[in-house]
Amino acid sequence: MKKLINHVDDVLAESLDGFAAAHGDIVSLGEGHLFVRRRTIRPGKVALISGGGSGHEPLHAGFVGHGMLDAACPGHVFTSPTPDQMLAAAEAVETGAGVLFIVKNYSGDMMNFQMAADMFERDNATVIVNDDVAVENSTYTTGRRGVAGTLIVEKMVGAAAEGAGKLAALKTLGESVNRATASMGVALTSCTVPAAGKPTFQLGADEMEMGVGIHGEPGRRRVKLSDADDIAAELTGAILKELSPKHGQEVILLVNGFGGTPALELYLMVHAVRKLLAGAGIKAVRYLTGPYVTSLDMAGCSITLTAVDKPMLALWDAPVHTAALRWGM
Amino acid sequence: MKKLINHVDDVLAESLDGFAAAHGDIVSLGEGHLFVRRRTIRPGKVALISGGGSGHEPLHAGFVGHGMLDAACPGHVFTSPTPDQMLAAAEAVETGAGVLFIVKNYSGDMMNFQMAADMFERDNATVIVNDDVAVENSTYTTGRRGVAGTLIVEKMVGAAAEGAGKLAALKTLGESVNRATASMGVALTSCTVPAAGKPTFQLGADEMEMGVGIHGEPGRRRVKLSDADDIAAELTGAILKELSPKHGQEVILLVNGFGGTPALELYLMVHAVRKLLAGAGIKAVRYLTGPYVTSLDMAGCSITLTAVDKPMLALWDAPVHTAALRWGM
Repeated sequence: MKKLINHVDDVLAESLDGFAAAHGDIVSLGEGHLFVRRRTIRPGKVALISGGGSGHEPLHAGFVGHGMLDAACPGHVFTSPTPDQMLAAAEAVETGAGVLFIVKNYSGDMMNFQMAADMFERDNATVIVNDDVAVENSTYTTGRRGVAGTLIVEKMVGAAAEGAGKLAALKTLGESVNRATASMGVALTSCTVPAAGKPTFQLGADEMEMGVGIHGEPGRRRVKLSDADDIAAELTGAILKELSPKHGQEVILLVNGFGGTPALELYLMVHAVRKLLAGAGIKAVRYLTGPYVTSLDMAGCSITLTAVDKPMLALWDAPVHTAALRWGM
Repeated sequence: MKKLINHVDDVLAESLDGFAAAHGDIVSLGEGHLFVRRRTIRPGKVALISGGGSGHEPLHAGFVGHGMLDAACPGHVFTSPTPDQMLAAAEAVETGAGVLFIVKNYSGDMMNFQMAADMFERDNATVIVNDDVAVENSTYTTGRRGVAGTLIVEKMVGAAAEGAGKLAALKTLGESVNRATASMGVALTSCTVPAAGKPTFQLGADEMEMGVGIHGEPGRRRVKLSDADDIAAELTGAILKELSPKHGQEVILLVNGFGGTPALELYLMVHAVRKLLAGAGIKAVRYLTGPYVTSLDMAGCSITLTAVDKPMLALWDAPVHTAALRWGM
């Protein structure tokens, strides 16, 4: 295992310490590394809290800040955070308008966020994200997995929360953004969990995992390595089949790197997907390209499309100031 | 070779097409993919132009925009751009105040930028960046290599150019920022150039290349894989030896990923370097963490420190709006 780490037990805490120092103008750490929170909370705003296993950075801590999350709870690598973490985060950042939990659809996350919601004695609601169209049910999931589309839900709901959205309306909005969002990914290599010390799965030198999950879970099929245009066609085709956009539909295109794939290739994928969208009469009106929802050091990428109307686009364009997304301020 | 590409000959053009589409609000492409330029040029400002081989994205095209470069010339992967590219870029973005070329110290880049400067009939000057303290002379270099510190030179000189800095003063500033900046990197894996189809160099499963260059050039020594604290100590030690900062010196800390290393590890390195800086009485006042000056898919990172005074810090903090760096607007 080749990683820039010290002891495997300290990876998360040391990384969070570095993150909190590097972005000390935006975030602070909860005691015991239980959560990352905004340094400054605005009273009266619905508090948005997400979280999940680590290893997907910048998701979620990188999206804490103005216009997105109020707190994020990092579990150990690929392990759900505990209910205590969500509870501590909720108590730290809730200011009277309630808490909206944004949860990726993995069984462990679902259970632990539900327990926290039950324990939390103030108003709260939950949005489940399940944008991965690759497979129904999976290693850690009943139903579809929540993947890179989570950041789009967090961005749009975050913008609405800054605009004084109420808890029930934000939940409705989040569910609506989730329905308008679909993703699918491909792995060219496995990831390696530090505590395991060896690759999560084995791929031949000429193989790829089509429809892979963000923990290296199996996708639809293991196939021979193909070229970027073919990969883009399969991923985009599956996504468009799900979204069934009308001719002329405007979309946000997120080409997300899994951690081991550089920008040169991700932008090439942008070009490949654009050609397909043009052929399908779909118009990409906003782009986001980079390693935003990673799988440790896995090589590969995912494509996410969100079908947008004008209000959704305004929420996307609204100012955001987090470690990983920043514009308009 | 596992990459998201089509034909190896088309990698650069297809990636640039995707980049230009994704960031069409900021940049446009010169004809024949010769250069990436700001969409909107402000007359009377000194034009800043950089460039170099591709494979280091987002450097340089990702730094074109308000507050940094006016144009960037991408060569083929790890290959210098041609003088024709710099000349075409200069003619496209120069508006009467002259051109400052920012050139990383590689023999090919130096020669080709010099030829372009000689052919260009308007005022121009050149800043050479050579921040890599790992080795003197190298595979493609006489003297020290220019690496991740280049982005700090581009950021500060870019801010000064927006503030109506004159050509001679900007050259002096760039040289001063370069002198205040030192970097060193480590590779855990090789990179693979698409046209070569195989790793540039071979590293054993328990080896790393200490002081590696951003094209996979040899560093100081090949050693047994070590832990993050040890790696940080060697890199930071070499940098501090070069900069000889006084006690209490303020610095910018850039922990740069080489393309195959995810944020989880880069932030852990931030923490490791912070501990060392604290021990040396040095204060990191700004941080930048991520894959900014990459080496294709190489795993590893570099550390860069820039010793700053108040005016330099103000230039760093000044608004910037590029594909890869954005704040204050």
